[in-house]
Amino acid sequence: MTKIDLNSDLGESFGRYSLGRDKEIIQLVTSVNIACGFHASDPDVMAKTVALAEAAGVGVGAHPGYPDLQGFGRRKMQLQPSEVEHLVTYQIGALQAFTSSKKLHHVKPHGALYNMAAKDYELSLAICRAIKSVDPDLPIYALAGSKTVQAAETVGIRCAQEVFGDRNYLPDGNLVPRSESNAVITDPAKVAAHVIEMIENKSVTAIDGSTVPLQADSICVHGDNAAALAIVANLRETLQNNKIVFQAF
Amino acid sequence: MTKIDLNSDLGESFGRYSLGRDKEIIQLVTSVNIACGFHASDPDVMAKTVALAEAAGVGVGAHPGYPDLQGFGRRKMQLQPSEVEHLVTYQIGALQAFTSSKKLHHVKPHGALYNMAAKDYELSLAICRAIKSVDPDLPIYALAGSKTVQAAETVGIRCAQEVFGDRNYLPDGNLVPRSESNAVITDPAKVAAHVIEMIENKSVTAIDGSTVPLQADSICVHGDNAAALAIVANLRETLQNNKIVFQAF
Amino acid sequence: MTKIDLNSDLGESFGRYSLGRDKEIIQLVTSVNIACGFHASDPDVMAKTVALAEAAGVGVGAHPGYPDLQGFGRRKMQLQPSEVEHLVTYQIGALQAFTSSKKLHHVKPHGALYNMAAKDYELSLAICRAIKSVDPDLPIYALAGSKTVQAAETVGIRCAQEVFGDRNYLPDGNLVPRSESNAVITDPAKVAAHVIEMIENKSVTAIDGSTVPLQADSICVHGDNAAALAIVANLRETLQNNKIVFQAF
Amino acid sequence: MTKIDLNSDLGESFGRYSLGRDKEIIQLVTSVNIACGFHASDPDVMAKTVALAEAAGVGVGAHPGYPDLQGFGRRKMQLQPSEVEHLVTYQIGALQAFTSSKKLHHVKPHGALYNMAAKDYELSLAICRAIKSVDPDLPIYALAGSKTVQAAETVGIRCAQEVFGDRNYLPDGNLVPRSESNAVITDPAKVAAHVIEMIENKSVTAIDGSTVPLQADSICVHGDNAAALAIVANLRETLQNNKIVFQAF
Repeated sequence: MTKIDLNSDLGESFGRYSLGRDKEIIQLVTSVNIACGFHASDPDVMAKTVALAEAAGVGVGAHPGYPDLQGFGRRKMQLQPSEVEHLVTYQIGALQAFTSSKKLHHVKPHGALYNMAAKDYELSLAICRAIKSVDPDLPIYALAGSKTVQAAETVGIRCAQEVFGDRNYLPDGNLVPRSESNAVITDPAKVAAHVIEMIENKSVTAIDGSTVPLQADSICVHGDNAAALAIVANLRETLQNNKIVFQAF
Repeated sequence: MTKIDLNSDLGESFGRYSLGRDKEIIQLVTSVNIACGFHASDPDVMAKTVALAEAAGVGVGAHPGYPDLQGFGRRKMQLQPSEVEHLVTYQIGALQAFTSSKKLHHVKPHGALYNMAAKDYELSLAICRAIKSVDPDLPIYALAGSKTVQAAETVGIRCAQEVFGDRNYLPDGNLVPRSESNAVITDPAKVAAHVIEMIENKSVTAIDGSTVPLQADSICVHGDNAAALAIVANLRETLQNNKIVFQAF
Repeated sequence: MTKIDLNSDLGESFGRYSLGRDKEIIQLVTSVNIACGFHASDPDVMAKTVALAEAAGVGVGAHPGYPDLQGFGRRKMQLQPSEVEHLVTYQIGALQAFTSSKKLHHVKPHGALYNMAAKDYELSLAICRAIKSVDPDLPIYALAGSKTVQAAETVGIRCAQEVFGDRNYLPDGNLVPRSESNAVITDPAKVAAHVIEMIENKSVTAIDGSTVPLQADSICVHGDNAAALAIVANLRETLQNNKIVFQAF
Repeated sequence: MTKIDLNSDLGESFGRYSLGRDKEIIQLVTSVNIACGFHASDPDVMAKTVALAEAAGVGVGAHPGYPDLQGFGRRKMQLQPSEVEHLVTYQIGALQAFTSSKKLHHVKPHGALYNMAAKDYELSLAICRAIKSVDPDLPIYALAGSKTVQAAETVGIRCAQEVFGDRNYLPDGNLVPRSESNAVITDPAKVAAHVIEMIENKSVTAIDGSTVPLQADSICVHGDNAAALAIVANLRETLQNNKIVFQAF
């Protein structure tokens, strides 16, 4: 029986600003990545989001990002590994404090931090060291086949390899950057087929037609709007038809 | 044998900005209140300061404040109790993540948050609930005789009643505001005598000459500059001469 | 011929966060108050919003607020008058730099700053001094009959007295706080009648039935959502039926 | 008669945090670059610093930087040119509002923004467009021989080419990065000789011994501490002995 984790970013609202359809997407996933106040969210949103996630019974993960609220953590910042280690430690601790059990399910770096770490072993080591220092049981969610997966092994923490159903892949296994026109897949049927390929073949067809081997432990899905939710609903149905079981990593 | 805790604020530097003589004051106290990034400090300073405090063997406490870096957390902000509860939870969690034991010694609110809470029972309840939610064993350091002491009792967390050797008192037990000319005592001998009076008589003489009963579990001292350090050194000597023993709360 | 200015807050989005129906409300007003990056907005939103306002031909005003993005500038902060003077100067200058003419039409303080100033003569003086220092021709929009109106006169800058069609008034001329259940009027017909009363009678009926004299130079309207826009559309129609002409202050 | 401008960064304090010896360095220079609240400073510090600079009669320039207070604007951030254009516009406007004449003397980008622009023509164009949009008379201070100098010419604003007496140069005319051990020259005599070479030979000897031609319109000096001030005092004396006259650009 094949099992898969479906994860989604949650709790990205801030102050008077509202973002995402948290109450809808949470019904469709098995784990969530909750923003920690640096690229999105604030302590009030975090309290509310953790409560929502605990009530839904999903895996509650921290989603630390760069300190760039205006840029939503999507702008690259060149920080020292020690600076990254400390800001990840800080954000994990802050989110963990809102949980009932004082124990998180996982950590997934956000945005530019996630993407830069995927290609940067030293940066990935810094993130993994931070996670281990807070709780050695905490796994990291990392881009399948990336430097972050290697770093997790070196540091000695568990790692869930993550794939993206709605994103095209480069031949080196990285995601096509959002700035490219073919970065995102919007057709629900294509997204589902993309994911089925990754799970069953343990590989993905890159944009140049080449086959990139990868391991899919978790699928990242989105709940930003109605179209995104429809993609997830269709993906769930296709996975169920293929006898794949949903379970948090 | 009378025991007393000496506490001081620590880790108030930020980025390129340096503040306080942390390495000197830490030798003179038994517990420290470490800023958590809202009114001062940043994740790098927090990592460094926690390491310094652990090496010195003092009680490591969180020092949460209002989100006002420019105002150093000293400007009053009118927040909902739930907002205060969440920002205290956030800051305690963030600091705790940097400790080796993932366990703090205490929590002391900072600046305007401390002073407003001292007079505001609802605000104090919010702070105490935050502390209890993160770790029910964590005591709060609170102005002796204040509303915060009452709130700690209601919520069911321990409380160290704090006194200030270098601050004059109002007849109602509150501190003379810093905006007043007679707020601060700068003569080391007077500071020491002030503290001895509070410990031995379990009361303080307010600025109008009246006697205010109080309990002194911890004395707040400062390490901002050479004069402040001299006051603490003299205070320690006077306390030792009076057979009072230094011990973290 | 009676003339009235209709003003609305604009440009309150921030980074990835979107707020308000700027393109719709701007068609219905004669002047706009553009957020300056402290309680809302960022430099990109400001550039875009000023361009939108200039294209629409409305009066472009600065809308400075407290440095509290999370609280949207609605939480009271206790700042020194000099601190307020400087943060208003800063925000006016920042917004003005985005205009084609390097000249603004007016300044309207935002949220808690507006409300606190309405009752605090010293705070109002600080705001008016800031405005005068940047451009002595700039008028302030101030709550009709408030301390801010007096301060503008003292400092020697022009003042547009502002009334609120969708807000009930206290007998002292202040607005019923938003925390009260009867703060806001949501029935479009009642809003229109409320405004007509204020313009034609030069007074308003407070919630206790008393009559409060006031001068209405500008009416504050909102474009947050469909209901708010409907209120404004109805108000415009009623005013036109009463031969009142729309013109920027 | 050879004339040279001596410029220094000023007003880098923030809230309770103090930085730099502003009152001493201002006596030794002809123009100053005042921080605008993004990488350092706040509205109160800006008000005070502009007043200090105007009293000293030096050229008052804006010193805009990346929005990174913790990193002091020294950490690279990957922003869109339009984002940079808007944050420079914002900061120039904010500082200008504090001047008596509502007119600045120049603009000098700070830290990572300055260094990245020196090598990035598009980024430099964005900065120059921002300057021109606020005031077409405003010159930019730019690294001698850099892409920023070219961009200023393209956009059509004046440019003061800047050289660094206390920094070694790469063969391509860029500064040796601060992360390198030979980045900074600390011997006052060597700094003075370095500057004399640049002014009189219109070239500099790079670290590999090659000669890099450059034009020196302004020399950047520092006032962080006693050693820095001594370097400037010695430099001034050497320049005077060489009949070089100090004058703002």
